[in-house]
Order: sequence, then C-alpha cells, then structure tokens
Amino acid sequence: MQGKVITVLARPNLALVKYWGKREKGKDCKYTSLNLPQNSSLSITLDAGEELLTRTSVVFSEKLAQDTFYLNGKKQDMKSPELKERFLAIEELRKLSGVGTRALIVSNNSFPTASGLASSASGLAALTFAASKALGLKIDSNKLSEITRIGSGSACRSLFGGFVVWNRGKLPDGSDSVARQVFDEYYWPELTTLICMTTREKKKISSRAGMRQTVATSELYKLRPDIAEEHVKEIIKALNKKDFEALARVTMADAMNMHSVMLDTRPPIIYLNDVSKEVIYAVEDLNESEKRLVAAYTFDAGPNACVICAESDADKVFAKLKGVRGIEKILKAKIGSSPKVLSDSESLINPKTLEPKFALEK
Amino acid sequence: MQGKVITVLARPNLALVKYWGKREKGKDCKYTSLNLPQNSSLSITLDAGEELLTRTSVVFSEKLAQDTFYLNGKKQDMKSPELKERFLAIEELRKLSGVGTRALIVSNNSFPTASGLASSASGLAALTFAASKALGLKIDSNKLSEITRIGSGSACRSLFGGFVVWNRGKLPDGSDSVARQVFDEYYWPELTTLICMTTREKKKISSRAGMRQTVATSELYKLRPDIAEEHVKEIIKALNKKDFEALARVTMADAMNMHSVMLDTRPPIIYLNDVSKEVIYAVEDLNESEKRLVAAYTFDAGPNACVICAESDADKVFAKLKGVRGIEKILKAKIGSSPKVLSDSESLINPKTLEPKFALEK
Repeated sequence: MQGKVITVLARPNLALVKYWGKREKGKDCKYTSLNLPQNSSLSITLDAGEELLTRTSVVFSEKLAQDTFYLNGKKQDMKSPELKERFLAIEELRKLSGVGTRALIVSNNSFPTASGLASSASGLAALTFAASKALGLKIDSNKLSEITRIGSGSACRSLFGGFVVWNRGKLPDGSDSVARQVFDEYYWPELTTLICMTTREKKKISSRAGMRQTVATSELYKLRPDIAEEHVKEIIKALNKKDFEALARVTMADAMNMHSVMLDTRPPIIYLNDVSKEVIYAVEDLNESEKRLVAAYTFDAGPNACVICAESDADKVFAKLKGVRGIEKILKAKIGSSPKVLSDSESLINPKTLEPKFALEK
Repeated sequence: MQGKVITVLARPNLALVKYWGKREKGKDCKYTSLNLPQNSSLSITLDAGEELLTRTSVVFSEKLAQDTFYLNGKKQDMKSPELKERFLAIEELRKLSGVGTRALIVSNNSFPTASGLASSASGLAALTFAASKALGLKIDSNKLSEITRIGSGSACRSLFGGFVVWNRGKLPDGSDSVARQVFDEYYWPELTTLICMTTREKKKISSRAGMRQTVATSELYKLRPDIAEEHVKEIIKALNKKDFEALARVTMADAMNMHSVMLDTRPPIIYLNDVSKEVIYAVEDLNESEKRLVAAYTFDAGPNACVICAESDADKVFAKLKGVRGIEKILKAKIGSSPKVLSDSESLINPKTLEPKFALEK
C-alpha cells in the first residue's frame, strides 16, 4: 500500500493546572507506562503565529523498509528509549488500521531555543494526528487523545484548541484518561499569554524521572492530586464566568503548588531560579499596585515564566516584565486551535521519492 | 533597690526540624501572641567561638527612670513593636520577681552581616537569662524557656546547649510549650556546622508575617505539623544511635519541607536563591560521589545554607562548598553550650554610673 502524505500543524499547550505525577500502572499493562496521571489537568492551547509550532508530514508505504523519523532536518535514532516510547502511539494506530507498512515521518519545530516550552506536546499531537489521517483511520478524538497520551502525557491536550481538560480517569487501561475541549479558542479571545524567554538552563532531571521521584518521596505530595482536581473545578468555574481574577488566582496557586511538591522531593527538584523569582515579584507587585489581579504567572518544569493577562492589559504587563533582568525576549501568544491538515504544497515529504523535501544534516 | 549588674553570653541555635507557623492563640490570651508553635522543633546550639554570640548586661535599679536598651552601641526605640514584644518577656520576669524598678540593658552581637543567622534567639536568651539573675529570680529552666518564648519563639531553644527540642505543647496558656535539652554539647562533639555566608539579601517578608500567611493560605501546610513531629522523633532516634546518615536525611527533608510550604503560600515566599540551589547540588553531588551521606544542608528563613557534617569530613565538605560561586566565607561551628554568666570584668555596664561602658553611637 502506498499511502497518502499527510501534513499537519499542531501547537503546544500551557497547563494552568499542572500534570506532575503518574499513578500506578495496571498489572497487565503492556507499555512501560500508560502515562496515567495522578490528577486531571487543564490547559490552553497557545498560538504564537509562526513561532512555537510543529509541522509534521507522515506517509505509510510498502516501499519503505523501516520506520524513519527526521526531526528538524536530522535523522533520529529509532532505538533511543524516548523515541521508542513516542512510537508506541504509532504502533497503536497501525494496529487499529490494520496497515502493516513502515512510515516516513518528517517533523519541524519552530521553538526558539530559549522559549522554555517543550515541543513534545505539539510534536506528538502533530504526529498522531497526521498518522491517523495517513492511515485512513476514522477514530474519534477520545481515542486519538488516548493514543497520543501513551506517547507523551500532556500531548493529549494539544489535540484540541481553546481550553482543554485532560481528565484523570479511573480505568486501569486508561481509556477514560483523555483530553476534551471545555471551551473553544473563540470563547475568550482576549486572553493573552506572554512567554518570558531567558537563558536556557540545562535541566538537572527529566520530567519523567522527576515525577517518579516526587510521587515516591515527597511527604506533601499526597495532597497534590486532590488540590489539583479542585483547581480544575475552580478554573472551569472561572471560565464559565470569564472571571479573570479567579482564573489568575488559581493559575498562580497551582503552579506554586506543583513547584512546592517538587521542592519537597528527595533530592529536591528546583526548576525555579532567581529570574523566575523576579517575575513572580514583578507580577505580584503589579497586581498590588493596580489593586486587582492584572496578570498571573505560571511555570512548567523549568525556570521560564508564562504570564497570562487580558489583551487590554498586555502592554502594561509587557512593560513590567521588560524590567526584569534576565528576560531576553517576550513572546506573545493567543488562544490557539486544534491541529490542522495542511495542503500538499506544504508537505515536508516528496511523495514521488518518499524522501524529506529539504536539505538535511547528516 | 539597686540590683546587681549581670552579664551573660548566649549563642544562636540552628533548627534541624524547623518552626514555621503559630497555632491559634487562646481566647483569653493577654499577649499579641504567645508564640505557640504548630509543631515541635529541634535544634543544635552553635558555638563559632567569638563569632555568632550575644553578650548582654542587665541591671534593675530604682535610680533608672525608664527601661533603656542599647543594642550594638545604639540606643533603641522602646516604642517599636518588635522591641515591645521582646520586652513582654522582661515584664513577665519583673512580675514574677515582684521587683518594680526599671532596667538598663546593654547588648552586643557578634554576627557577621552576611551570616544569615538571626541574632534574635541568642539575643533574647541572653536577655531573659541575665534579667532573671539580675532580678534574683529562682525559676527553673522550664519557666524561663516559657517566658523567653513569649519574646521570640525560637529563642527558647537557645537557653540550652547541645541538642534541644522545643515541645509543641497543648495547653492554651503555653506553659507546656517549652524547650528542653535532649543531649548535651559533649554527647556528639564531632558534629560540625559549616555556615555559608553569601551576600546579604533583604527579606521581602518577615518571618512573623510569612508564617501567618503560610498557615492561612498554603494548601499543603496542613500536613506540615505532623511531618515535623515525625521528623523530631526520627532525629531523636538518629541521635540516640549517633547515626549521621539518618540525621542528615531528615535534616535535609525537613528544611525542604518547610521551604515547600513557604513556596505554596500566597503570595509565594521564596527565600532560597540560585546560590542556595548550588549548595544543594554541591552537597547532593558530594553525597552521591562518596556513596554515603557525608553532609546535610539546611536553610532557615533565608538563602544562606548551613551544612552539617562530621568533623572528620569537614575538610572535604569545606572544599566542596568553596567551589560554589556566591559563597563568600564559610564559618565553622561546633555544638555550643547554654548561656553563661560572665565575670564583672566583662560587664557592659558601669555599675557606679549605670551607664553603658563603651563609646556609643548616638
């Protein structure tokens, strides 16, 4: 079978209620991990225009002798554990479709090095979205979200635009641990994110290993899942009313709550640094001087701040953040949409030769 | 009555299990706060020779028209809220003794600016210890500890040498919330503290205000009191066996646990900085490369690290810490003793003129 080349664009998501910690996998679990979370999380999909996005082309063909994956122009080692895990999602899709042929995948990320945002979510969402189309699969977004989650937990949220909840779920097979959109990207278009880019700091510990350590060793962690579930409810309530201050309050509390259980881990996981601290003080200071919550900071598993605010306050917040030493650039994003299929002219694969279209590094 | 001038030397203490959070004061509480803690804490008294100590002379005399307090050569404003609170302890002692005369107090601290250790504990312990003697009071250490605690919570631990537990207590009047020595300063003399001095950072929030905010707003805090009680038990067990590794493990966990609930406070309280982080990494790194727990870090309500280790490892730990950029000086301390009365020749008060002995700033 010579499948069609499908090209997809996907965007990252920013969690306002964070995912940090997997629950025990079922005994008969066939994967290293199903990436089943300890708690539900809630995110916004980010649209920073031509920045922070993944474009991925996928084709399945009997002409291909093996699975091949080019990332940012570079052929990847298919034996790396990380890639193997990501490809569990592809295996799953292949099984569902009954198609046994190999795949060529070409993917480009436009993530500035210092953005501090991971491309894994948009990358995997683009991959499974494109692969499911390339395989001609008719599966619902629930199922695709479930499969995407297997490749990378938080990536399941990037299958949707707008405001997205990744439900914790209860079933050991993970079929109910899927993302869904709670509000689309047109619901609250004024909501703006300022992504503060600082000098890149090498992580001392990966998120995967860090999560495991936190769940195993933090004495405070046992409260975290319930706190996060509560935060999801509170944010949905705030979204219903478009109550920015409530949204801001919970967003900040949840980020700090996650970083607290990280700090309580042995050995401690400390992603925040002095620049993060200055961003926190700057936002707190602004909120205090304005006598209302103008902005809210949040931090993923890294030192880079994302600050949310209303578009009407963005200039004010931007100016305040510019005063923080250590921030090199601020990227503005609005609420983004779900992955979309691009036209053939935007394909990264030459459908005739089944080769990447662009000059590649060896 | 012309009382005797009493001069006392007292030392600070370093909590291995931290005090962070007061419990509700009783309804009929006559003080702003009795400084009753949410949890027990455990400290070592620090002896850094001529550094980090308080010398205080006290005299009560009818010749004195009012209470006067000279700190580090400077006459203090008796109306400042902080001083008023400290003087609650003096009022209490005066009441117990039946002596109604005013006091002259002269106190000198030898705390290097960048030590990051507060002089409030040694300061208040010296003050109440000296005042009780100057008033001719025969009270037991329990009672003196209780009174000292009213002036400054953790100061009650500096009334003892060696290893000291400040028991949480349960009574609303605080009479059972007192410190006691669990092991004296000769029990484990090999135990050494390296105090890492960095550039002084002005605190954004006082301990008093910070504690209150944590208790009121941290969603994780409710676990903290029980965790700390457990840590106290574990440290006592480790002390019984002179098990340094167990002591180290709990010391690090407890410090991080306190800083976690600080971070979980709204707005977040962040005392650790990038230098603190480097000290944590350096100690973790050393412990890992030595395949045993050689050293343990702890942080009070500030960025400065105190690192404990065995005297036999002190050179090794010192060398490792010297490699941390941002540490300016490392001060070594051993386990210290309780406050002691100095001879008249060391008095800071001229008993004839009832004036401070030394040239003073105006």
